[in-house]
Amino acid sequence: MGDVHIVRRRALAAALQESGIDAALITRLVNVRYLTGLASSNAALLVWADGSATLATDGRYAGTAAAVCPDLETVIDRRTALVLAERAAAAPAQVLLGFEDHHVTVRQHGDLTAVGDTLTLTSLDQAVERLRTVKDETELDLLRRACAITDAAFEAVLPRIRPGMTERELAVALERQMVDLGAEAPAFDSIVAAGPNGAVPHHRPGDRPIAEGDLVTMDFGARCDGYHADMTRTVAVGRVADWQRETYELVAAAQQAAVQAAVDGAETRAVDAAARDLIREAGHGDHFPHGVGHGVGLEIHEAPLMGYDKTGRLSDRATITAEPGVYLAERGGVRIEDTLAVRADGPEILTKTTKDLLVV
Amino acid sequence: MGDVHIVRRRALAAALQESGIDAALITRLVNVRYLTGLASSNAALLVWADGSATLATDGRYAGTAAAVCPDLETVIDRRTALVLAERAAAAPAQVLLGFEDHHVTVRQHGDLTAVGDTLTLTSLDQAVERLRTVKDETELDLLRRACAITDAAFEAVLPRIRPGMTERELAVALERQMVDLGAEAPAFDSIVAAGPNGAVPHHRPGDRPIAEGDLVTMDFGARCDGYHADMTRTVAVGRVADWQRETYELVAAAQQAAVQAAVDGAETRAVDAAARDLIREAGHGDHFPHGVGHGVGLEIHEAPLMGYDKTGRLSDRATITAEPGVYLAERGGVRIEDTLAVRADGPEILTKTTKDLLVV
Repeated sequence: MGDVHIVRRRALAAALQESGIDAALITRLVNVRYLTGLASSNAALLVWADGSATLATDGRYAGTAAAVCPDLETVIDRRTALVLAERAAAAPAQVLLGFEDHHVTVRQHGDLTAVGDTLTLTSLDQAVERLRTVKDETELDLLRRACAITDAAFEAVLPRIRPGMTERELAVALERQMVDLGAEAPAFDSIVAAGPNGAVPHHRPGDRPIAEGDLVTMDFGARCDGYHADMTRTVAVGRVADWQRETYELVAAAQQAAVQAAVDGAETRAVDAAARDLIREAGHGDHFPHGVGHGVGLEIHEAPLMGYDKTGRLSDRATITAEPGVYLAERGGVRIEDTLAVRADGPEILTKTTKDLLVV
Repeated sequence: MGDVHIVRRRALAAALQESGIDAALITRLVNVRYLTGLASSNAALLVWADGSATLATDGRYAGTAAAVCPDLETVIDRRTALVLAERAAAAPAQVLLGFEDHHVTVRQHGDLTAVGDTLTLTSLDQAVERLRTVKDETELDLLRRACAITDAAFEAVLPRIRPGMTERELAVALERQMVDLGAEAPAFDSIVAAGPNGAVPHHRPGDRPIAEGDLVTMDFGARCDGYHADMTRTVAVGRVADWQRETYELVAAAQQAAVQAAVDGAETRAVDAAARDLIREAGHGDHFPHGVGHGVGLEIHEAPLMGYDKTGRLSDRATITAEPGVYLAERGGVRIEDTLAVRADGPEILTKTTKDLLVV
């Protein structure tokens, strides 16, 4: 594990050099994890433009840090960010210290500012998040594994879906199956929405029993070593009404269009538009109230976010979701979602479950 | 549900009046939930000193907000905090707007500052967290329920602990039992640490099989409607060595001392000292590397934090954990933890599982 984190820290160091920043104070825990391998609830990392680095964490994680990143100088002190800022301030010259202005709170910023006159604070402008949008092979492998478990859980649970089962029972069945298949945990609170509840994009699974004639939307995923899978499938129970089939086919076509648009260099807005235009042309523009997808990796939602008002471009090795939906109040909804990797030679779809309309 | 949230917003309004602040912009999602009942991943709340309020959330939560807080004016706009700041800025006079400086990032603060000259931003100084340290009856009931499920899960799983079972299997068994008993989810990633792993306070359960002669520490809890239980018990497998019994009895005495010290008006430092002094006198001062406990409620860790270096006082209806531990590298450890409510007439211990040393 050591090497990949050194490579990542070098990439950050190169970005610092390019921006003329002397050192970066990394305080977002997920970014500390990305750059060191240490998953914790209290840590910070100081990375200098020459690539050298110091980790700070508290006594609870001392043993873990020694095991996970033995190559890294580590300070055990619960005042993690402050102790690293003090260290940076002790350098012989004035230090331009990049900090995560999208994470450091106004209060923490006051504390950092008070460390001393030899520090000048400047925004890192989400430098680590930008590195993280491009996955390395270690990350792609973990995402493939998380997605494979997600697929396998769906396949195992599908035959158990029947009228009378509650949304919550189905959500629990999916989550347990994923853990039994080796997930460290569900990637997020699973959504299972049956019948009219399908009209609520983020419905929390409840005690409604699944009924004959329902569409049932399942949005769930496995987490493997910190990496999140995210998949949604909508199935029909017993029979399919015409409006259900039409809605399904529309969403499936929109999802396919988004996947095809997700090429290296594409504007994220264009990926959203590929799906949204089809849905709007079918008269359902108002029934698709969220962006088409989001980056996924060490966080379930990360850069790039993809909506009609989001700017940016996809790059090779970005991992994203494509998840249009159509939600019809009081009737139900359809959402279809894959996790995929943008590759130079076309998208690599990581969730491989069929997108044909399944009737259970 | 409506009434309790109105009461909470009135309490915040009273705090604003006392501080001379015109309105509060609440952006921490857990605080928005506390004041409105809406659990979401994107919402903000504007509360005026007269108690009137406006909620902002995005389209995904429009239906939920209408159902959960129908009494509350709601703006559907994904720019939640900004749209509420703009609304405050549109007031006829200059507005002193309190914001959560421990949550608003430097970047967000820049956006808020740019809203207009009619707003003056000032720190709310964690006003909502301070209200939240004193639980109302609705909250105490949810915490009692979460703790009862935690107790029942422990009782159900205890007879299944035997040599050869892995830490992970035991963690999964506890978590599934809690969900089967009605928890919406585990309150946090459960810790199960067997044998030498017990020396790591935050050990992540792995594939180590439990062995005859191990101490096994289980730190877990149920979540009910957003409220978190937190309990730790350490059991012996098969037999008990003298050092294990001595360590257990020391920690049990220290835990009992902390519980007894947790009275209305007590300094949090004194609660920590009650446990720490006993452990130090027994020569294990260096083997208790964390604070004695923390507030618990809508967050698994919330105010008040209790350690030797933490200031503050406990108040009636504060809910906290008391969880000293002794960790002996390469040998193992003991931690014993309850969730309890500070009451005027003495602590109400919410987790009721025995603290006698159990041998399974």
